[in-house]
Amino acid sequence: MEGDFRKALKSDLPLLREISAALAEAPGKRIRPNMLFLASRSTGGSPEKASVAALAVELIHTATLLHDDILDGHMTRRGKATVYARWGSDAAMIMGDFLYSRAFSCLGEAGLDDVIGVLAKVTNLMSIGELIQLQHRKDINVSEDGYMELIYRKTASLFAAASECGALTGSRSESHRSEFASFGENIGLAFQITDDLLDFIAADVEIGKPVASDFTEGRVTLPFISAFRNAPEKTRERVSELFHGGFDGDEHWNEVVSFVRKYGGIEYSLRKARELGEKAKNALSPVSPSLERDALCFAADYIVQRISPFAA
Amino acid sequence: MEGDFRKALKSDLPLLREISAALAEAPGKRIRPNMLFLASRSTGGSPEKASVAALAVELIHTATLLHDDILDGHMTRRGKATVYARWGSDAAMIMGDFLYSRAFSCLGEAGLDDVIGVLAKVTNLMSIGELIQLQHRKDINVSEDGYMELIYRKTASLFAAASECGALTGSRSESHRSEFASFGENIGLAFQITDDLLDFIAADVEIGKPVASDFTEGRVTLPFISAFRNAPEKTRERVSELFHGGFDGDEHWNEVVSFVRKYGGIEYSLRKARELGEKAKNALSPVSPSLERDALCFAADYIVQRISPFAA
Repeated sequence: MEGDFRKALKSDLPLLREISAALAEAPGKRIRPNMLFLASRSTGGSPEKASVAALAVELIHTATLLHDDILDGHMTRRGKATVYARWGSDAAMIMGDFLYSRAFSCLGEAGLDDVIGVLAKVTNLMSIGELIQLQHRKDINVSEDGYMELIYRKTASLFAAASECGALTGSRSESHRSEFASFGENIGLAFQITDDLLDFIAADVEIGKPVASDFTEGRVTLPFISAFRNAPEKTRERVSELFHGGFDGDEHWNEVVSFVRKYGGIEYSLRKARELGEKAKNALSPVSPSLERDALCFAADYIVQRISPFAA
Repeated sequence: MEGDFRKALKSDLPLLREISAALAEAPGKRIRPNMLFLASRSTGGSPEKASVAALAVELIHTATLLHDDILDGHMTRRGKATVYARWGSDAAMIMGDFLYSRAFSCLGEAGLDDVIGVLAKVTNLMSIGELIQLQHRKDINVSEDGYMELIYRKTASLFAAASECGALTGSRSESHRSEFASFGENIGLAFQITDDLLDFIAADVEIGKPVASDFTEGRVTLPFISAFRNAPEKTRERVSELFHGGFDGDEHWNEVVSFVRKYGGIEYSLRKARELGEKAKNALSPVSPSLERDALCFAADYIVQRISPFAA
């Protein structure tokens, strides 16, 4: 797939070549393709089909990141300057469009019609997620349900699609489709919650993105939401003030982190992530045991446990 | 298709509903869907399939306009404020992503796999066209070949795809596919050239977009390119100066228009558009005569003739 990814971005156009080279330098963890490959193998899938589907998923994921970085004004990602930072929002937007359409043209060429159906739907879901996020910008009163809906659309839906598409390149049975979709959805939700938790508990750890960015950009996440609803009125007023523009540097961030700890936001989110990890594993219990299925279950554990050392 | 278009944009999300309503208020001429329907009928096509394909083409076209308006900073289109102007670039970008993905999800649901292949490829071509345009911004030395390549990518490729997809919902024969694709490509090129001509010859005519916008935004089009290569050095220097930031209001624009007239840019572009119109009609000569085929040929004539009254 790595080779196909580079090939898919090949072009005579100098600007496209430069941007592609930059993308290749910061390749990410490839979590979604790996999940797709394992789901495919667990269901006796064709490696060739899985490879095209995985490529499409990673192209779509990359396109989403490019557009996200414009929306959030992110200058760095994975420790490197973003396309937005280096080439500006116009180039980043067009490059995102290029990657989206490249994903669907690869799938079309390979005749993977049902994969197209799943990925078109999820791309649509994700764009609505972006619109919802746009509407909730600077809204401190986002509910837990609102947050879960948003991270489903923005993150978990593509995890679910990747996992389901794996099964689609394999047995194609309806039960496998829904089992793997459910696995992907729950692991995706757990992944996003732990990612949001990292903002609060790994201030000194290298996570490749600036700490506190969600909060300072006007987005609240589960650790904050769950602490906020437990806190007394006076304290809520104080963090509200920080959220609405009173925020200025490390000292205030330490105050927010203490607030989230004190009112149980870390604990609550960690428990929620663990539950979702369990749900993910349970979704795969009807699937015949195999090395690949076990690797997926291991991934569900890993995603939750990666933050436990910091959470103590 | 109009009903399906509204349905495709339906949503519970207030922001999406507002933007959709604005889009419905300025529906455009629907040239591409009409072409697709006529191509479909000329080849004995299924109206249901044609309707889904036409919807997808119009959704993609609309998405392209939304992203284009961001890139070009257009505040009005079709006489109304653009999504970019009313809701900002973030919402316009996401809405474009929404429309692209909606197009492919509609096609996926209807199982129109070969149409997906054609439209994914063309969406990709168009995005590369945007990147090329970005690279050529403020470049006065764009060649005629460079211009033709660009308008193929940005405009004619989607006309070609619409026409080809019509044949794909009909006879699906290889010869029909290539005849209709060639028709669409040539009528699309003629369409774009006459559109660019309108900038120079219809200063007082209502065309729904600000006159001179291409030139002031740093893009040269065929009338200018062909005049520029005929003009003597001194004159070229003067218009170069205007192009590179010395431009200020109507008086300068009149100077540029006189320049283009004097050095044969209008005449040359009109001849070129006529030739392409003829080529389009010739492409359909192997197709069995029908009312629908004749209507397409009439459209090729109309697109070229619409500007003749002003060109004299």
